[in-house]
Amino acid sequence: MKKIILTTLCCLFITCAYGQTQDDSLLTEKRRFHLAQFTTFGGQVIPNVNVGWESYGKLNEKKDNVVLITHYFSGNSHAAGKYHPSDKQAGYWDALIGPGKAIDTNRFYVLSVDSLVNLSANNPNVITTGPASINPTTGKPYGLDFPVVTIGDFVNVQKALLESLGISSLYAVVGPSMGSMQAIEWAATYPSWVGRMIAVIPAAQSDAWTTAALEQWAMPIRLDANWNEGNYYEQTPPTEGLTAALMLITQQALSPAFFNQQGDSLAYSPLEAGPLEDIRQSHSIVNWLYQRAKSRAGQMDANHLLYLVRACQLFVAGHQGSLQNGLKNIQAKTLFIPAQSDLLLMPYMAELSHGLLQAQGNNTHIAPLEGQSGHLEGLLNIQEKAKTIRQFLENE
Amino acid sequence: MKKIILTTLCCLFITCAYGQTQDDSLLTEKRRFHLAQFTTFGGQVIPNVNVGWESYGKLNEKKDNVVLITHYFSGNSHAAGKYHPSDKQAGYWDALIGPGKAIDTNRFYVLSVDSLVNLSANNPNVITTGPASINPTTGKPYGLDFPVVTIGDFVNVQKALLESLGISSLYAVVGPSMGSMQAIEWAATYPSWVGRMIAVIPAAQSDAWTTAALEQWAMPIRLDANWNEGNYYEQTPPTEGLTAALMLITQQALSPAFFNQQGDSLAYSPLEAGPLEDIRQSHSIVNWLYQRAKSRAGQMDANHLLYLVRACQLFVAGHQGSLQNGLKNIQAKTLFIPAQSDLLLMPYMAELSHGLLQAQGNNTHIAPLEGQSGHLEGLLNIQEKAKTIRQFLENE
Repeated sequence: MKKIILTTLCCLFITCAYGQTQDDSLLTEKRRFHLAQFTTFGGQVIPNVNVGWESYGKLNEKKDNVVLITHYFSGNSHAAGKYHPSDKQAGYWDALIGPGKAIDTNRFYVLSVDSLVNLSANNPNVITTGPASINPTTGKPYGLDFPVVTIGDFVNVQKALLESLGISSLYAVVGPSMGSMQAIEWAATYPSWVGRMIAVIPAAQSDAWTTAALEQWAMPIRLDANWNEGNYYEQTPPTEGLTAALMLITQQALSPAFFNQQGDSLAYSPLEAGPLEDIRQSHSIVNWLYQRAKSRAGQMDANHLLYLVRACQLFVAGHQGSLQNGLKNIQAKTLFIPAQSDLLLMPYMAELSHGLLQAQGNNTHIAPLEGQSGHLEGLLNIQEKAKTIRQFLENE
Repeated sequence: MKKIILTTLCCLFITCAYGQTQDDSLLTEKRRFHLAQFTTFGGQVIPNVNVGWESYGKLNEKKDNVVLITHYFSGNSHAAGKYHPSDKQAGYWDALIGPGKAIDTNRFYVLSVDSLVNLSANNPNVITTGPASINPTTGKPYGLDFPVVTIGDFVNVQKALLESLGISSLYAVVGPSMGSMQAIEWAATYPSWVGRMIAVIPAAQSDAWTTAALEQWAMPIRLDANWNEGNYYEQTPPTEGLTAALMLITQQALSPAFFNQQGDSLAYSPLEAGPLEDIRQSHSIVNWLYQRAKSRAGQMDANHLLYLVRACQLFVAGHQGSLQNGLKNIQAKTLFIPAQSDLLLMPYMAELSHGLLQAQGNNTHIAPLEGQSGHLEGLLNIQEKAKTIRQFLENE
């Protein structure tokens, strides 16, 4: 069990040296969606928007079998399948999405879209528009001149893509973490579109605690002198600041149980000789965390992280001032899947939204993940809720 | 209740503009203890060690009524009382220590000592020796040439002070957080000295999770260009890095309930106009957290924070390689007071130590704080356990 979790984590979040090979994985490809211009929730116009997207399964004639998957903070639209049969790792929710799986691609047309300001701007399999993109006005990367964008903007880009395919309803929208924000936003802002909404390790708003916690992710980047107020595209990027941010995110997304198991495998001890002898040396568990974060940082863009943080901080379902107001519009049947050991978006957030929906008479369900991997239970162990999800999607 | 907590927090951790005035507070003064030289656990010799200390109550003739209070990470020996009757704030555990209080100064001689590498090196009421001190060899501040020190070293300095007063036993040793580490270290390393040990919001070792979490506090300081590998004493100090570290510490030491209550008082909303309009602006809750951290940073030294982090990371009770080995030596009657909402040193740590002591037949007790203020329950609301502590100290 330990080995499986570690392998999965390594491959999900870190440059992958080895991984699971699943013969039953779908093949997919990254496609590009272009918008000549897009107006943000804040009223700014972004010309020449490009985002990547993937799909699994087939759109039926009535175009009413669409399941939209919305991705998490450091994720992208590679939710399932492989680009090539030889890929060592399938998309992050491959355990959930595929032929005969809980989100059954024999029945559903499953689709996922790279977010605006996607973290992995330097990943060749990600297509996104953000501060690292070229500002057509200047011919140089936007940097901090890129407009602030919101979770609602991510949803509106997805909606434009769906409309370009002739789609006008979602059988379901399903997403983990920041993806849950998008799923809830869909249900709150476009209620007539959404039949079912599944929010995994979710939050329906960024409360004061969460907004402050997200800010901690941004601080190390701004402290790195190479960040240079966001103008680093023609010089050394703020890799150390970005690495520190990723170390913090990784720890907050996991749990003491996970880290202490990892410590065991490193023969971690508080009284290790190096850090006792020299203030400049670090413990084995710190070196492990640093190296993993550093290896991820290369495909990511530091400014994009700041913009993603801001999108999450600004989130309240429906963008109508209060959570209660936003949730009032939801018509979809809803399922909340928090993780009991989650330290990032704690279960109280799912319970709050579920409770408010229940109080207003909605058809709503909650089914907590019980494992000990913290927030990442929703990615690493989502198969624990495969049956619940299948039933939720099957029943009318 | 809310107002009381906020006032107390402001005064404990932030430059205090107002605060409780308790007419029943003791008067005390900071004294200086000097050691011509001190040899660290790691075998390094530090010449000319100075630490501050305070006492409350009177040492009896048999010198057997001593209660030692060991302080927390950002604290110092001002555990109770006031320096002047007009002081706006008494020592941090004044609710617990005083005439007729749970730690009754009519009966006990209560004593507390500023740690080595104390965080508040620039506070005129703190006397400490650390990287900001003058290295007699060079005539300049040590910076990173100061030796790594451990929780065991803090205890050995305290022991030298006690011995200089002719004291050779402790009726009890009591401390919160990093102070609990020192209390447990006392009981594990000098078992014949210690009659009773009370560990509040405690940890008996730094496990892999805790060591990694502590490292996150150090990262922002090292990222600040003004840190300059610890050589900043003749130039601008790394105040922004130190402020970021304090923001993280403050959040981890509190809880969602606390922050969301604070958010209410700020009229926090996810969709605040400033941060929606401009990536350079921040939410009200972030500004609140930043300002409070910044106002604390002036009295603190960034290198001292790095050394305190390291002392905590290296901690395992008894410094004998494993927690089990260290706890085996404990003879003291023990009481563990974790906080149920603690996100920093979670209750599992107290339960582990209590369980191991119970299994080896020790007289051990556990009494969790039930409030919602996180780790700081052990400072802000310790009076909730005043009766438990009084009884624990009274009974043989």
